[in-house]
Amino acid sequence: MHGKIALEEAFALPRLDAQSRRWASLFSTDVDKHVAEITDINATRLRYADAHGVGFQILSYTAPGVQDIYDREEADALAREINEYIAARVREAPEGRLGAFATLSMHDPATAAAELRRCVFEHGFLGALVNDTQRSGPAGDDLVFYDRPEWDGFWATCTELRVPLYLHPRNPTGVVFDKLWKDRSWLIGPPLSFAHGVSLHLLGMVTNGVFDRHPDLQVIVGHLGEHVPFDMWRINHWFEDRKKLLGLAETCKKTIREYFAQNIWITTSGHFSTTTLNFCLAEVGADRILFSIDYPFESFEDACGWFDGVPLNVTDKLKIGRENAKKLFRLGEYKDSDTPLTKDG
Amino acid sequence: MHGKIALEEAFALPRLDAQSRRWASLFSTDVDKHVAEITDINATRLRYADAHGVGFQILSYTAPGVQDIYDREEADALAREINEYIAARVREAPEGRLGAFATLSMHDPATAAAELRRCVFEHGFLGALVNDTQRSGPAGDDLVFYDRPEWDGFWATCTELRVPLYLHPRNPTGVVFDKLWKDRSWLIGPPLSFAHGVSLHLLGMVTNGVFDRHPDLQVIVGHLGEHVPFDMWRINHWFEDRKKLLGLAETCKKTIREYFAQNIWITTSGHFSTTTLNFCLAEVGADRILFSIDYPFESFEDACGWFDGVPLNVTDKLKIGRENAKKLFRLGEYKDSDTPLTKDG
Amino acid sequence: MHGKIALEEAFALPRLDAQSRRWASLFSTDVDKHVAEITDINATRLRYADAHGVGFQILSYTAPGVQDIYDREEADALAREINEYIAARVREAPEGRLGAFATLSMHDPATAAAELRRCVFEHGFLGALVNDTQRSGPAGDDLVFYDRPEWDGFWATCTELRVPLYLHPRNPTGVVFDKLWKDRSWLIGPPLSFAHGVSLHLLGMVTNGVFDRHPDLQVIVGHLGEHVPFDMWRINHWFEDRKKLLGLAETCKKTIREYFAQNIWITTSGHFSTTTLNFCLAEVGADRILFSIDYPFESFEDACGWFDGVPLNVTDKLKIGRENAKKLFRLGEYKDSDTPLTKDG
Amino acid sequence: MHGKIALEEAFALPRLDAQSRRWASLFSTDVDKHVAEITDINATRLRYADAHGVGFQILSYTAPGVQDIYDREEADALAREINEYIAARVREAPEGRLGAFATLSMHDPATAAAELRRCVFEHGFLGALVNDTQRSGPAGDDLVFYDRPEWDGFWATCTELRVPLYLHPRNPTGVVFDKLWKDRSWLIGPPLSFAHGVSLHLLGMVTNGVFDRHPDLQVIVGHLGEHVPFDMWRINHWFEDRKKLLGLAETCKKTIREYFAQNIWITTSGHFSTTTLNFCLAEVGADRILFSIDYPFESFEDACGWFDGVPLNVTDKLKIGRENAKKLFRLGEYKDSDTPLTKDG
Repeated sequence: MHGKIALEEAFALPRLDAQSRRWASLFSTDVDKHVAEITDINATRLRYADAHGVGFQILSYTAPGVQDIYDREEADALAREINEYIAARVREAPEGRLGAFATLSMHDPATAAAELRRCVFEHGFLGALVNDTQRSGPAGDDLVFYDRPEWDGFWATCTELRVPLYLHPRNPTGVVFDKLWKDRSWLIGPPLSFAHGVSLHLLGMVTNGVFDRHPDLQVIVGHLGEHVPFDMWRINHWFEDRKKLLGLAETCKKTIREYFAQNIWITTSGHFSTTTLNFCLAEVGADRILFSIDYPFESFEDACGWFDGVPLNVTDKLKIGRENAKKLFRLGEYKDSDTPLTKDG
Repeated sequence: MHGKIALEEAFALPRLDAQSRRWASLFSTDVDKHVAEITDINATRLRYADAHGVGFQILSYTAPGVQDIYDREEADALAREINEYIAARVREAPEGRLGAFATLSMHDPATAAAELRRCVFEHGFLGALVNDTQRSGPAGDDLVFYDRPEWDGFWATCTELRVPLYLHPRNPTGVVFDKLWKDRSWLIGPPLSFAHGVSLHLLGMVTNGVFDRHPDLQVIVGHLGEHVPFDMWRINHWFEDRKKLLGLAETCKKTIREYFAQNIWITTSGHFSTTTLNFCLAEVGADRILFSIDYPFESFEDACGWFDGVPLNVTDKLKIGRENAKKLFRLGEYKDSDTPLTKDG
Repeated sequence: MHGKIALEEAFALPRLDAQSRRWASLFSTDVDKHVAEITDINATRLRYADAHGVGFQILSYTAPGVQDIYDREEADALAREINEYIAARVREAPEGRLGAFATLSMHDPATAAAELRRCVFEHGFLGALVNDTQRSGPAGDDLVFYDRPEWDGFWATCTELRVPLYLHPRNPTGVVFDKLWKDRSWLIGPPLSFAHGVSLHLLGMVTNGVFDRHPDLQVIVGHLGEHVPFDMWRINHWFEDRKKLLGLAETCKKTIREYFAQNIWITTSGHFSTTTLNFCLAEVGADRILFSIDYPFESFEDACGWFDGVPLNVTDKLKIGRENAKKLFRLGEYKDSDTPLTKDG
Repeated sequence: MHGKIALEEAFALPRLDAQSRRWASLFSTDVDKHVAEITDINATRLRYADAHGVGFQILSYTAPGVQDIYDREEADALAREINEYIAARVREAPEGRLGAFATLSMHDPATAAAELRRCVFEHGFLGALVNDTQRSGPAGDDLVFYDRPEWDGFWATCTELRVPLYLHPRNPTGVVFDKLWKDRSWLIGPPLSFAHGVSLHLLGMVTNGVFDRHPDLQVIVGHLGEHVPFDMWRINHWFEDRKKLLGLAETCKKTIREYFAQNIWITTSGHFSTTTLNFCLAEVGADRILFSIDYPFESFEDACGWFDGVPLNVTDKLKIGRENAKKLFRLGEYKDSDTPLTKDG
């Protein structure tokens, strides 16, 4: 399929090369290649895109990024630096091939909202990508969740600007790391901890009423939904049968299925399984699924080779591959944006 | 779910009561009840609809109907009688509860087109329902398929009028009955012969180029697609790899998946299986699936009880339950047409 | 996966080269290659098997074969010639790599049973493969179905010998061809007619009581079940609710699901779709699914590349890939018969 | 279906009625009914079982039970009291209707192993059910995981006794509760926290090598696998491509799919979704799925009504409904243990 759009695609600052190298050593089988790929913006990335039928990519700063920085001023400054850097790179890229999500310091709702507004107005960013909770506190052991009422101003800004927020995972830290993950470190990241973090945060937003207070808010999660679709029946069963009695009805007026239909999107990033995708067609629906890669943690070849070959109906393949993203981000024309599907997908 | 729309819903003429009774004896466990239900238009049917959340029904004459009548004049006359009868009954019904498909004698393309046009203009019928091939010939042993070029005028009328044709099954007759079905009569009807007839006719239309010559033509088949979705991969595999060499490319320029995305709809009539529905979400897509019952051969209770309880995402449930039909038939308001889904589906 | 077993694998007699060439011209994009592959037994075939992890293959004579020959004596003689030919070739092959299904002339139950018995005892054949109905009658326009009581002796021989019968498709002929298929010839073969033929024959056996009279009889059908699993719910719904009244209960005492659990096997031949396979896990179950290719109409590369990569649980992958076949055919050791699955499947 | 076996079925001590009442108030819409049901052993429970086709039930002490008691002596004593209590009640029940899992204090591996051995030998218990981590430490803020080498002696006892361990969830406590769950309490329990706890613990056992060191160990988890099957592809992808480099290969020699095939079972407790069950047929396989209810948190009616009506092949329905459990627990005869499936499931 030509003209695919991908939206969980990471980059890193070249000046933080040593940090990129250290992170890469935790999971990569080829650290040099990974660091080269994640610091590249316009060269390798576009060659891969051409080779694998990706028309448009939305770039975001790699995890844990600014969410790992518990000093507020340092975090604010780094976010701004990243945003200026990627804005310049995107401007240098060929027309209609790259876009960006804002990087935000999430220590303070008003500051985050202001930086998002600035990025959208000044640079045409298409939303923001935040790496789960903001680490904070003097020792970095506190976690800022955005499902509390004090974040309503930030969410109001997102809906006013009509841009989505991508809720991306980050690694566990502090006392939660010590108690749960330290002795089972193979599970940190894609195998388990990422989904634990994001599913808690996303369902916290659902049950604490964020989507009721901001009915137009759009939140994206990756990896085919961070486990949540698997339990859609079970969550619905517990919420609906017990909501009235227990008071959940006060904060969470719709069903879990309604929030998934009206406020939540899932992407295929890092989860290239036809079986799981088909399951998500039933529990989430093709109108809310978006293609993504998770490059350079995953390869264009794996992601696109899989998606192009999935034996899916044409309408939903186009929706997931690019049409849903065109609507969500109000995208105009870009490379191959209207190429029909070929016989091979 | 309230406000569902159902579109494979049969009636019979009261004056042919003896015939209805004879047909019913072939499959029904309660002949009297069946005959009462199939001859009723406005009473029992609407009570069931109210009880089971059906807002709007499109009625059609029961199979084999006019397609079984191999005398052309007799067939023409009966079609006209049926259309006048149901037009009057629909007018008597409460506003916005009933619609009708035209019954057509398919001996001659021009006559069929003219009667369809008359029914749409005079009575506001929403399309036509035809029971597979027209029986013809002096002994009733010939079969008229509508996938030959001589039917292009008829299909042009359908697209000009912007109404779909529902390709419904009928029983095997003549020499095909003798050679294949006579000694295995338990398979006649829903268990097998219906799907054999319609899948041949529908794929004949695909491969003989009807949809290429009439790219806006819309055809509906029941029973979740009369087996065809099951082999979508296999059909696509054989057509695409061998099309060029063998000349199929001349008559059938698109892929089977494209015809299903652009020209074909499937309904849930008589196939209340969550497993099969989920399979069809992948191979056909929710944008092309329509709820239907197949009353009175199936019950409102079975069809609606199943559909209301299917653990499906909200968007696709609304599409299948009513929104797709509202678009296809350009329906305005009808009973409960905008009621949101409740927590129970 | 190593050590896969494949059982719908065709060969042709070298002396009928012209016929093979004529058949190949109907579907093949490379007639020379096809004819070379279908007449080869021990060379190309085993190289492909080595390259793609197939340990053991059961060969059968290509369709329509003897079932197309309506002269009884000619059919009897050809079946015998084919059986002697393939028995010799299998003996020449490396130990434990090739087996064979008997080819049978199905004009007469007793003759067919005797030839099957001879092939099993003299040559160690593992069952028989029959290409749907036997063409018969002076003009070749009659069809012999094996679901009539006069075939009970033949089925008794199958169960006595404890060998399965593979019910393979063949092309429509005679008046059925004229009435239904002649004007839509693109649908003859894998796209549609094959499934129509076998599903009718198989369900004829079910409803005419063959499996009730021979409860140990094992019948295999290819292409993931020739459409039948798609309608399992619908067939069950019609048979069970109406069986008692209509007399089907006399000839067909169990449910359709029970026959699929006790008497029927499906193979993956020619249907390399993960979506459809997963659907069949629910409706048929992994204990009754067998890997197969349909070589040389399909390639080892397509079949094995797909199956090895299917994201399936380990137990069912081994069952489908080889363990079910080892049980069904009581196979001992063969190449790689116990190699565990690697990480890649 | 008759003769179903259920194995996540909770009871509570009558003398802790106040505690049961307090727990029930957190989720139940009818506290009195819940307390009556959870303290009943032989009356209501068997009436429900008779009404809904459950032949045999394995009872276990309700969560969090002894795992919530951070005083070791108190925990040891309570476990012993519970085991004596339920052993007596099971003995009083009609022959072949009830069994029990041992309740264990998990402060010390040797003590836990000894109590398990005692329960199996003295009372014929069929294994143990443990509620996730053992709370410990002077303030109850430490968590004992059983995936560390010091628990090898305990696991060796399980395999020696050939009994499985059911790893059941419990609520988050201590600092993990404070940091993650306190402000999103609607997610505690079935909607999310249960799956987070058990998936971490189970995959910790996998990656820390428990199953490599105890290849015959059998562990059961409920709720169709506590999210893990959803990510089977993703876990396998990350473990297999990166295992060698990163050293995971030292502690975890097989693939995640192999552990699920050889050591792990999932039950349907509290997750009565046909869509999710079908997904698990592909990713886990019917040979490793066991019916369960989660009574009295779920009703017999919901669980059995759903399972009896699931449109599943007969073989896998019998396996999941009872045959797998009969093998796993080496059960002999019990009520309806060999009743075949009826036409209705």
